[in-house]
Amino acid sequence: MSIRNARHPFYDFCDDALADIRRQGRYRTFTPLARDAARYPVYEEELADIPQGREVVVWSSNDYLGMGVEPEVCEAAISAIREHGAGAGGTRNIAGTSPLHKALEAELASLHGKEAGLLFTSGYVSNQASLQTILTSMPGWICFSDRLNHASMIAGIKGARGSTTIIFEHNDLADLEAKLAAAPVDAPKLIAFESVYSMDGDISDIAGICALARRYNALTYIDEVHAVGLYGEQGGGVTDRDDVSDQVDIIEGTLAKGFGVHGGYITASASIVDYLRSAASGFIFTTSLPPSVVAAALTSVKMVRAQNWRREKMFERVNTFRAKMRAAGVPFTMTPSHIVPVPVGDAERCKIISRRLLNEYGLYATPINYPTVPQGTERLRLTPGPFHTDEMMDQMVAALKTLLAEVPLPVVSDNVRGMAEAAA
Amino acid sequence: MSIRNARHPFYDFCDDALADIRRQGRYRTFTPLARDAARYPVYEEELADIPQGREVVVWSSNDYLGMGVEPEVCEAAISAIREHGAGAGGTRNIAGTSPLHKALEAELASLHGKEAGLLFTSGYVSNQASLQTILTSMPGWICFSDRLNHASMIAGIKGARGSTTIIFEHNDLADLEAKLAAAPVDAPKLIAFESVYSMDGDISDIAGICALARRYNALTYIDEVHAVGLYGEQGGGVTDRDDVSDQVDIIEGTLAKGFGVHGGYITASASIVDYLRSAASGFIFTTSLPPSVVAAALTSVKMVRAQNWRREKMFERVNTFRAKMRAAGVPFTMTPSHIVPVPVGDAERCKIISRRLLNEYGLYATPINYPTVPQGTERLRLTPGPFHTDEMMDQMVAALKTLLAEVPLPVVSDNVRGMAEAAA
Ligand SMILES: Cc1ncc(COP(=O)(O)O)c(C=O)c1O
Ligand SMILES: Cc1ncc(COP(=O)(O)O)c(C=O)c1O
Repeated sequence: MSIRNARHPFYDFCDDALADIRRQGRYRTFTPLARDAARYPVYEEELADIPQGREVVVWSSNDYLGMGVEPEVCEAAISAIREHGAGAGGTRNIAGTSPLHKALEAELASLHGKEAGLLFTSGYVSNQASLQTILTSMPGWICFSDRLNHASMIAGIKGARGSTTIIFEHNDLADLEAKLAAAPVDAPKLIAFESVYSMDGDISDIAGICALARRYNALTYIDEVHAVGLYGEQGGGVTDRDDVSDQVDIIEGTLAKGFGVHGGYITASASIVDYLRSAASGFIFTTSLPPSVVAAALTSVKMVRAQNWRREKMFERVNTFRAKMRAAGVPFTMTPSHIVPVPVGDAERCKIISRRLLNEYGLYATPINYPTVPQGTERLRLTPGPFHTDEMMDQMVAALKTLLAEVPLPVVSDNVRGMAEAAA
Repeated sequence: MSIRNARHPFYDFCDDALADIRRQGRYRTFTPLARDAARYPVYEEELADIPQGREVVVWSSNDYLGMGVEPEVCEAAISAIREHGAGAGGTRNIAGTSPLHKALEAELASLHGKEAGLLFTSGYVSNQASLQTILTSMPGWICFSDRLNHASMIAGIKGARGSTTIIFEHNDLADLEAKLAAAPVDAPKLIAFESVYSMDGDISDIAGICALARRYNALTYIDEVHAVGLYGEQGGGVTDRDDVSDQVDIIEGTLAKGFGVHGGYITASASIVDYLRSAASGFIFTTSLPPSVVAAALTSVKMVRAQNWRREKMFERVNTFRAKMRAAGVPFTMTPSHIVPVPVGDAERCKIISRRLLNEYGLYATPINYPTVPQGTERLRLTPGPFHTDEMMDQMVAALKTLLAEVPLPVVSDNVRGMAEAAA
């Protein structure tokens, strides 16, 4: 019954594509890591040959403040499961809107000083669905998009058929202004950018971009995914810290990083939010977030807003780590954010150092390779947080010092490197 | 500081679009409903004026088997929260792959008799990301898409720039064959369809479509979102029931309906899954599902596979409900699935009946209006399940009988209807 006349060419395509990815040293193997909530950032690595696994200190988590292991946050999720069950059971329109969803939307609107908020199933979906819906709403939209915008924004922007995309150089306001000035005056315009760019750890000039937006009458859309919870008096992100929330039309964020749970959102004027609620396919046609996820996120947002010491603690830890790296002479990129990139410069070297950190030191730092970052800028990306102790830091600094010295930057062609990888 | 030279036209656009939606009777208000896990399908409706809310029996949940309130499923989520915290803390590649994720992917592959499985943050994302990635993988793809395919499949298909879409009439194999035959022989082809179409409750001829796929060498992609857990000896969906899983290349499903939790997935050959894992933006660039969601889903899938009585119980309840409707002379659409549509034929009438069911009888059935279904085919969509008692059924049948008689099909123009709506 299952015989087809010919093997479909997609099967060969997949085999070939995967062979290529391997040759380029880009094949990704996910390390299976079970977080130990009571001992964060300690995880257990699952191993085939050791039943109890291996203990690992994780340095790459995006649960920056450890809110995902906060007992109050966990208890909020647990009571919601006991009260309402494990899932939502429907889309927002079909019995999937609980009072918790409404309360979290109101809380997020208030956090960002906006009239309304809208929950999505992830930060990825909030970007893709919102941008695509906005940019197909009226004819002739021109989207000015920062060159380093995240894949989820690009998905929404590219998905908006009929709109025009103009990419401006990363954080380059002169380039942005030149491109705004060259565009037709009457076309509806939108500037899409991030606050903290998570791979490089740099921060955009939000006030400067907003001034240009006013001059050229462009709508502003900011992704604060790597900033919410972490910046500003109440954790409203860099817009909060810089006191410019009211200058940005749409603020997008995630509940899965600084807030430690899951889900995404936008906040904006009541009518923009109501329009997206009514028109965005990625919002309408999907099961809403489980009440337990929403309850945990609501508790987390409230705690993070009220407890500035969590942000202070994180930055103290980040600064201590940088001081230790500097003292030991281990190179890292200094950034104005909480992110500590360690340049490695080559995909294979990056993978080897990451693997040896794990195997020899029990330290986990994800190799960041192409396509996430440009070739030649491969790096380890460290995110020290409130739970990294001085001792853990000393271990990481010493291990990096050794491995960066022991594993040289290869001077081989792509081809030879590919063969070495295939042989490994 | 926040003054712009002119109000951005998008603000007016949103106001106008919302006014239009209201005029057409399409403005959606989400009823805030808190599920009472211990008393499913009883929910509590949040009301401004009654602090303790109002008790409501929900007839529109897609947690078809009530797995989301199963104590074992809830306990699995709760232990995972206690062990691993409330969120995943990273993407699959960045410390967000736990052994639970791997175990659930293996379980789903086994459920569908496929080599591998891949988790996504929702069924919506699994469709959008998989179809878009496949249809942009090679040049010249032609996608044959059933006219009634779900919005999430359409999003992926439309998002695949450079590919061609050919829509075939719903469940019409003659039309599909004519269109396959007319297409260039050498172009890579894909047929995208569903098993159970959730708004009409009809079921596709999977074996027939697969026979055509073999004849014209097309890849087959099926959405089993409204069938997984419910059909087949092990709940593998209609492909399981009809014993045709091996004829379909890619089987997509959700963890949020029959399995009662949250998340989506595909299962397919190892290389297709590995390619999508490596290439699909919507898979790569997003925080992975919380371990607690994965743990609950894994428990649910295992239970649902082993316990055929859950499916039998559901169909017994569905048949009992239909018999009661028939006996009372209340019209409904007979379907080969578990879904019971009650035709209402007009958006306003649908909303009024739904509102009166809620306010006067404490019964909740979502009005299904355009754009979810075509204008003129508005309906209530009932999903009787194992937890609906005979008494609850008698209440619903009696209430429907009264309201369908009392609320006539209006014979007014769109315009007048719009004015009435605006005045309400
Ligand atoms: C800048 C940026 N935006 C959006 C997202 C997506 O957010 P989420 O993980 O909630 O899908 C991410 C990362 O995952 C990100 O780095
Ligand atoms: C046919 C179909 N496919 C996919 C989805 C999306 O699944 P999920 O709710 O898990 O996003 C839905 C409904 O939500 C659906 O009805």
